[in-house]
Amino acid sequence: MNADPGFDAVVDLLGMMACGELLAFERLAHDAALAPSIEDKAELARMAVAEFNHFTLLREHLVKLGADPTAAMAPFVDPLAEFHQRTAASNWLEGLVKAYVGDGLAADFYREIGEILDPATSDLVQEVLADTGHSRFAVEHVRAAIEADPRVAGPLALWGRRLMGEALTQAQRVAGERDALVSLLVGGVDRPGIDFNELGAMLGRLTSAHSDRMAALGLDA
Amino acid sequence: MNADPGFDAVVDLLGMMACGELLAFERLAHDAALAPSIEDKAELARMAVAEFNHFTLLREHLVKLGADPTAAMAPFVDPLAEFHQRTAASNWLEGLVKAYVGDGLAADFYREIGEILDPATSDLVQEVLADTGHSRFAVEHVRAAIEADPRVAGPLALWGRRLMGEALTQAQRVAGERDALVSLLVGGVDRPGIDFNELGAMLGRLTSAHSDRMAALGLDA
Repeated sequence: MNADPGFDAVVDLLGMMACGELLAFERLAHDAALAPSIEDKAELARMAVAEFNHFTLLREHLVKLGADPTAAMAPFVDPLAEFHQRTAASNWLEGLVKAYVGDGLAADFYREIGEILDPATSDLVQEVLADTGHSRFAVEHVRAAIEADPRVAGPLALWGRRLMGEALTQAQRVAGERDALVSLLVGGVDRPGIDFNELGAMLGRLTSAHSDRMAALGLDA
Repeated sequence: MNADPGFDAVVDLLGMMACGELLAFERLAHDAALAPSIEDKAELARMAVAEFNHFTLLREHLVKLGADPTAAMAPFVDPLAEFHQRTAASNWLEGLVKAYVGDGLAADFYREIGEILDPATSDLVQEVLADTGHSRFAVEHVRAAIEADPRVAGPLALWGRRLMGEALTQAQRVAGERDALVSLLVGGVDRPGIDFNELGAMLGRLTSAHSDRMAALGLDA
């Protein structure tokens, strides 16, 4: 099975997702400390636990494939940790926008890749991408906060742009280091070299979905 | 059911435990960020998730009793948050010692109270107290760290004493404010006034168990 040309790419993808879910757990749990009430804290903690359960599923699937989960996650720890360090939420609303925008972006990206995977892996990716309730909770709370005080919208719109910028920076870094993953995304052995048109089209879809999410929050993209 | 003389005390106890589990989740998830490896991070995250699941059980039991979980937790948010603020771990080993010593102390205390509860509540308390694997993980890692560098033992022993001191400070604060809980612990309507002998004996059992835990870690109490 390890001879399959796509094996490295699948392990890369699952390792990246597993690492992403574990760090998302950490970030959400941390941002729960910014919650204005104990109910909001519990709600964010519940989301964090959902991310951790996804991490467990991904790790188990890596083991089933015969891969070492720790080794699979290793290349992505630094880029993902750096993304979170450079976009540490300084208040509750920033945390909610980050959870909604960040998870949405990650989900779109995994969905783009997920379609070319084997059925078992693809099913797992779909399960992990299932909305855990982040969207409705974040959208409701951010919209209510803007309604209560329209001045919060400007800084949050800037924050959304910064999140997208940092995500692209770290994505470029990963793309530069992980050939297998890039090949999976934009072509394989039968299509050598990077297909820049396809990559551009995908980036277009990702940024367009990002704008839709910002609009859902009541923010300029 | 609300006319039961022990109802307020049971709600207080479950509210305190629920709040404690939610904040323990937050603390463990936060300390996971101090982990030296991605495996250790995942292990601490797993413990945090176990605490959150306990929180969910306690909250559901409060609802079943006809109590408002948020109101039940409210009196304990400040004392527990203050405990965690005043004992924020500054490194991985402090976090492990705190998880082990803090959870052990809380478990002993709940066990002392749990025996006088109705069977359904008592069963729940026992389930929540079941060791989630903290002990073995913390003991192994702290002992290994001391073996590798004996100089870490002194500061960690001081840290353990500080944890106990802060816990007693917050416990006194809660005791001064929650009559129902204190009555449950040291006597009821048929035994008015606080039985200082019984309270003293209980504190003796708690501090003795604390010393045993410090010894298990390889530290002076």
